[in-house]
Amino acid sequence: MIFSYEQLYQFTFSVFKAMGCSESHAATATKALLSADIRGIDSHGVARLTGYVRLWEARRINATPDIRIVHETPSTAVVDGDAGLGLVVAPFAMQVAIEKAKIAGTGWVSVKNSNHFGIAGYHAMMALDQDMIGMAMTNASALVAPTFSIERMLGTNPIAVAIPADKEPAFVADFATTTAANGKLEILQRKQEDTPDGWVQDKEGRVSKDANILKKQGALLPLGSDREHGSHKGYALGSIVDIFSAVLSGASYGPWAPPFPAYVAMPENMPGEGLGHFLGAMRVDAFRPAAEFKQHMDNWIGRFRQAKPAPGYEKVLIPGDPEREMEAIRKKEGIPLVESVVQELRQVGDRFSLHL
Amino acid sequence: MIFSYEQLYQFTFSVFKAMGCSESHAATATKALLSADIRGIDSHGVARLTGYVRLWEARRINATPDIRIVHETPSTAVVDGDAGLGLVVAPFAMQVAIEKAKIAGTGWVSVKNSNHFGIAGYHAMMALDQDMIGMAMTNASALVAPTFSIERMLGTNPIAVAIPADKEPAFVADFATTTAANGKLEILQRKQEDTPDGWVQDKEGRVSKDANILKKQGALLPLGSDREHGSHKGYALGSIVDIFSAVLSGASYGPWAPPFPAYVAMPENMPGEGLGHFLGAMRVDAFRPAAEFKQHMDNWIGRFRQAKPAPGYEKVLIPGDPEREMEAIRKKEGIPLVESVVQELRQVGDRFSLHL
Repeated sequence: MIFSYEQLYQFTFSVFKAMGCSESHAATATKALLSADIRGIDSHGVARLTGYVRLWEARRINATPDIRIVHETPSTAVVDGDAGLGLVVAPFAMQVAIEKAKIAGTGWVSVKNSNHFGIAGYHAMMALDQDMIGMAMTNASALVAPTFSIERMLGTNPIAVAIPADKEPAFVADFATTTAANGKLEILQRKQEDTPDGWVQDKEGRVSKDANILKKQGALLPLGSDREHGSHKGYALGSIVDIFSAVLSGASYGPWAPPFPAYVAMPENMPGEGLGHFLGAMRVDAFRPAAEFKQHMDNWIGRFRQAKPAPGYEKVLIPGDPEREMEAIRKKEGIPLVESVVQELRQVGDRFSLHL
Repeated sequence: MIFSYEQLYQFTFSVFKAMGCSESHAATATKALLSADIRGIDSHGVARLTGYVRLWEARRINATPDIRIVHETPSTAVVDGDAGLGLVVAPFAMQVAIEKAKIAGTGWVSVKNSNHFGIAGYHAMMALDQDMIGMAMTNASALVAPTFSIERMLGTNPIAVAIPADKEPAFVADFATTTAANGKLEILQRKQEDTPDGWVQDKEGRVSKDANILKKQGALLPLGSDREHGSHKGYALGSIVDIFSAVLSGASYGPWAPPFPAYVAMPENMPGEGLGHFLGAMRVDAFRPAAEFKQHMDNWIGRFRQAKPAPGYEKVLIPGDPEREMEAIRKKEGIPLVESVVQELRQVGDRFSLHL
């Protein structure tokens, strides 16, 4: 079933309003959430709206948070999200990073007491029209086993970096620090297909191709899959995201990160408050004139686009290309949602007397 | 053959002095270079001394550089390395980052006109005893093909992040953004062994196990190995390192990064000056009190050490564990060098009438 962006915007905005969010928070959250759908990252968009509502029902999300800076220096801040929607808390924190960067050259904000923030790339991209490089990362509930382990210790902990160019579109990398993101497993589950080798392991640490293995105490594997192929690097990257997002801010980290599904009990003895994020902004002209930098980015991007393709492949992609192309299509043709997501959304709509 | 750290220090220091380096530069370069040997990263240590001498002979390295800040804001700087040894330029730039962080909370320095800087981890670790998080990255001559390509466009572009703890030793990640670093290939070449699948491809983009494939126009693969296992993420990471190190600073980037072997011609139409680095320092107490942060790092590290190991594995490692353990051994028992490295070093020694 196909929906226009405007239809989904109106519905999502109304749901957030019905939860008690202010107009401004509801608009911010809706834009952040739907940026995933429009860019083709279906696992992180409106399909998660029901999950956010359930967290609010379970009183794990505060619809009227007092989001505030609790510590700062010229180039840093810690933001307390007051258990608000990450979709609202992260844009607030990114704006703080951008304001810091205007004066100090760079701004770095670690966030505690937040929740899932949608796609990391959305927040990183907020920096682009300021001629800044944007960065965003977040920790998340533990689904990933470190190299040599069978215990889930880390989330899929994504990293996004957005870098402005001049005539070329921006370079926008946004990726989970695992071999495959959880959303990829969900797609295979719906198709009842196996995963490739190297994405997941079972609860004993054995190779598995079962797309449902996370429901059987299995784990996602860090980027690199196994030690021989560099999984210790993916494990290190996921750890860095966890530490920057949660240990720096005072959020809960590692296996104590709060779960997204509201029916999963909160971990015991949590060492911090809520989920953590880390947002950064670097003013390009804090290094060299912005026009000069952006011309060299055009040159960089142009050269990489011309890299000789391997037989059977058409061209080399620049990070952000597939999502931008999807955005152009979906703005025109609408956003397809699978039947089960539409059903869930309509149930949420019924709860608030809203129609999708 | 086993050498004490002191023997190698004296010899290396004397070679740098003989090249014309000042006492202070020779000492800085020697410490940075030998940190690789003592930590067990044999490919990046004294085995490369001959390579540095050859670059100096080819007038690609300036032994008496005027290393200076050419642009700055409260939290950023661009450093021009004046074609100096990266082993001297990077510690200078890291010190600038640390001084910036003391005042602004964080410091970020992009470096142009430099050369190879040894192991990234050494520079990142300079931040640790200041209760700061240190970061270091560098671009390097192109050996890596982006996903879907057969052209070498990126270096192994390493990332290092060093994070202080309290009673536990620091978390020190230091890794190439490829599945396997070039040094791993060199070890297999000496043993005349094949590589595992997923490390390299041949010049047509076919799977290869040939440890000598880089001499046959083959390429290293980005972390993730292939698209299905996330090589687009490793490609994005290597690209970010290239852009932060070289496009931000005005160094030469992508396939135009200058080669390490002095016999390889410089690329034509280089878009910048020399190699680039990116160094960062974040004061922990720019986010939360340092004692509190370091206690939570102890808790993080302790919990990850206790993660349930997979059958057949003894324990989960914390990034930096293997190198720290190697350092303890080599400080006591000395540093083993392979015959061919010793021969090369003695030839260099003869050139300067120095004895190893």
